[in-house]
Amino acid sequence: MFDSISIIGCGLIGSSILRAIKDKNLAKEIKIFDYSKDVTAYLKKEKICTNVSSDIRQCVANSDLIVIATPLSNYKEIILSMKDSLKKDAILTDTGSVKKEVMKIIHNINLKDIHWIPSHPIAGTEESGPKAGQADMFKNRWCIISPPKNCAEQPIKILKNLWEKIGSKVKIMTPEDHDKILSLTSHLPHAIAYNIVRTVMSVEDKLKQEVIQYSAGGLRDFTRIAASNPLMWRDIFLDNSVNISKGIDSFIEKLNELKKAVDDKNEDKLYQIFNSTKEVRKEIIKAGQDTNKPDFGRKKD
Amino acid sequence: MFDSISIIGCGLIGSSILRAIKDKNLAKEIKIFDYSKDVTAYLKKEKICTNVSSDIRQCVANSDLIVIATPLSNYKEIILSMKDSLKKDAILTDTGSVKKEVMKIIHNINLKDIHWIPSHPIAGTEESGPKAGQADMFKNRWCIISPPKNCAEQPIKILKNLWEKIGSKVKIMTPEDHDKILSLTSHLPHAIAYNIVRTVMSVEDKLKQEVIQYSAGGLRDFTRIAASNPLMWRDIFLDNSVNISKGIDSFIEKLNELKKAVDDKNEDKLYQIFNSTKEVRKEIIKAGQDTNKPDFGRKKD
Repeated sequence: MFDSISIIGCGLIGSSILRAIKDKNLAKEIKIFDYSKDVTAYLKKEKICTNVSSDIRQCVANSDLIVIATPLSNYKEIILSMKDSLKKDAILTDTGSVKKEVMKIIHNINLKDIHWIPSHPIAGTEESGPKAGQADMFKNRWCIISPPKNCAEQPIKILKNLWEKIGSKVKIMTPEDHDKILSLTSHLPHAIAYNIVRTVMSVEDKLKQEVIQYSAGGLRDFTRIAASNPLMWRDIFLDNSVNISKGIDSFIEKLNELKKAVDDKNEDKLYQIFNSTKEVRKEIIKAGQDTNKPDFGRKKD
Repeated sequence: MFDSISIIGCGLIGSSILRAIKDKNLAKEIKIFDYSKDVTAYLKKEKICTNVSSDIRQCVANSDLIVIATPLSNYKEIILSMKDSLKKDAILTDTGSVKKEVMKIIHNINLKDIHWIPSHPIAGTEESGPKAGQADMFKNRWCIISPPKNCAEQPIKILKNLWEKIGSKVKIMTPEDHDKILSLTSHLPHAIAYNIVRTVMSVEDKLKQEVIQYSAGGLRDFTRIAASNPLMWRDIFLDNSVNISKGIDSFIEKLNELKKAVDDKNEDKLYQIFNSTKEVRKEIIKAGQDTNKPDFGRKKD
C-alpha cells in the first residue's frame, strides 16, 4: 500500500485511476490536482475525492507516487512546476499515448532522485471528463511500461504491481517500440476514423441527414473513435508525427491498390483483398482484446 | 398474410427474414432454396424451415412473394432460372446493397406481369451463414425500397407492410440516390476498414503479435467490419464502382490534408480536424442509429 498518491489531471483516465485505487484500497491518502476547477469540484461534490489541491506543488509534496494524466502538451509545465517539491525516491509516472518526446522533456529537465517510469494504459472510451471515469476501466486491459535504461528494479516492480492490482496486464517495452506499435494499433486507426467521418460529412447539405440516418451500414463504427477528445489527439499526432506520417503513406499506397481493382472491376483482386482480413478479428478475440458478440454486442434498441 | 413466400439464399440475411416471418406468423407457407446443401440442411435440421426445394423453379411456383437474398453476382442466373415459373402478379424483391446494376439486369430480362421492387435492409452483422441469422435482425433498422417508376401502388404497400411487420422502418428512394448514399455510409467505410486492417497487418512479422495484442487502442473497431462476407463485398464494389471510386478520391484528398498538418506539426489545423467530427456521433445516437453506451456497451470480459 502507498502512503500517498497524487493524481495530476482527473479526466476520463485520471479519475478512473482515482476510482480504481480507492476501490482496491491501495493508498492511505490520495491527493488530486486539475487545471479545471469544474473537474475537481465535480469529484469533490460526488465525494470521489475530497483532498483537492489548488497548488500543484502542495499536491505532490510527500507523495510516493505521482501520476500525470493530462494531455501531453501540459507535461512540460506540470513537471517544471512540481520538480522542486517532489519527495526523494518518489515514483513519477504518466498515462500518455506517446513516449519518445516525453522522454526527451524529462531528460532535459533532469529530475534528481526521482524514479521516472512512463506508463500507457491501453484503455478508455470515446467519452471525456471525470464523470465518464470508471473504477473497472483497466480490467483485463494492457498497460505498457517503458522504464528508462538506468531505472532501478524496485520502483518498476512497485508500479507494475499497482497496475496489476487495478486489473491491468503489464508489458514492458522500449519507448521506440511503444511509439511504433501504437502508431499502428491506435494512432493510424484514429487518423482514418476522423478522416472517413470528415470525408462523408462533407457531402452536400441535402444528403447530410440521410447519411446520419443510414449510418448503421458501416459509418457508425467509425464515429465512436472520431468522437474522442480532440486536444488529446492533437498532442498525440504532434508527438508521434514521424510514425503516423509513415503509416498514412502505407495506407494511401494500399488504398490506391484497392481503387485500381475497383476501377478495373478486377473480381479476383477484390475478392483477395476482402478475404485477406477475415482472420484478424478472430485472432483479436482469441487474444482477449474484444468481445466475440456480433456487432460488439450492441443493443438493437 | 401471404399464402406463400419463397426465400432464395438463406445466409445471414435470408435466414433472418425466414425467422422473422415465422416469428410474426406472416405466411401460411415459406419455401426456401439455396445453392449450398449445407445451408438448407442446417435450417431443416434445426426445424427453422422444412420446406426445402432443390429446384429453384419449384421453390418459386405459386409464391406471392419471392425474396432474393444472395450475393449480387448470382442474381442474373437466379432470375433467368425462375422467370418462367413465377406466378402472375407475384412480388419479386431482394436484399442487395446496390441497386442500379440490378435494375439493368431486370430491365434486360424483361419480366412480364411481375412486380419487381428491390429492397435493402440496412441490417446485418460481421457474421455469415444461416446459423448467425436472428429473428430480430431488422428491429428498429431502416429498409430502403426502390420501386421502378412504373410500379403499381398496391404491391409497394404490401412489401412495405411486410418489412414494417418484421420491425423495419421503411424509406422509399430512387436507385441512384440509394447507391450514392450507401456508397458514403456503408461502402466507403468498408473499403477503409479493409484497408486499415490490411495496412496494419502488413507490418513485419515480429510485430504482428503485438499489433493484435494492443488492438484495443483503436484497430479492433475496424476489424469487425473487415471480417464481413468477402464475396458479398466483392460484388458490391463491382456494382457500385463509380460511386465508390469517387469516394476513395475524396478520402485520399482529405487524408493528404491531415498528413500535411502532421508533417508541418500544425497544431491549430490538427485540433480543428479532430474537433470537427465530435458532433456526428451525437446525431447518429439521436437518430436512433447506435447505442449511446461508451465502447458500444462492450463487455470488459
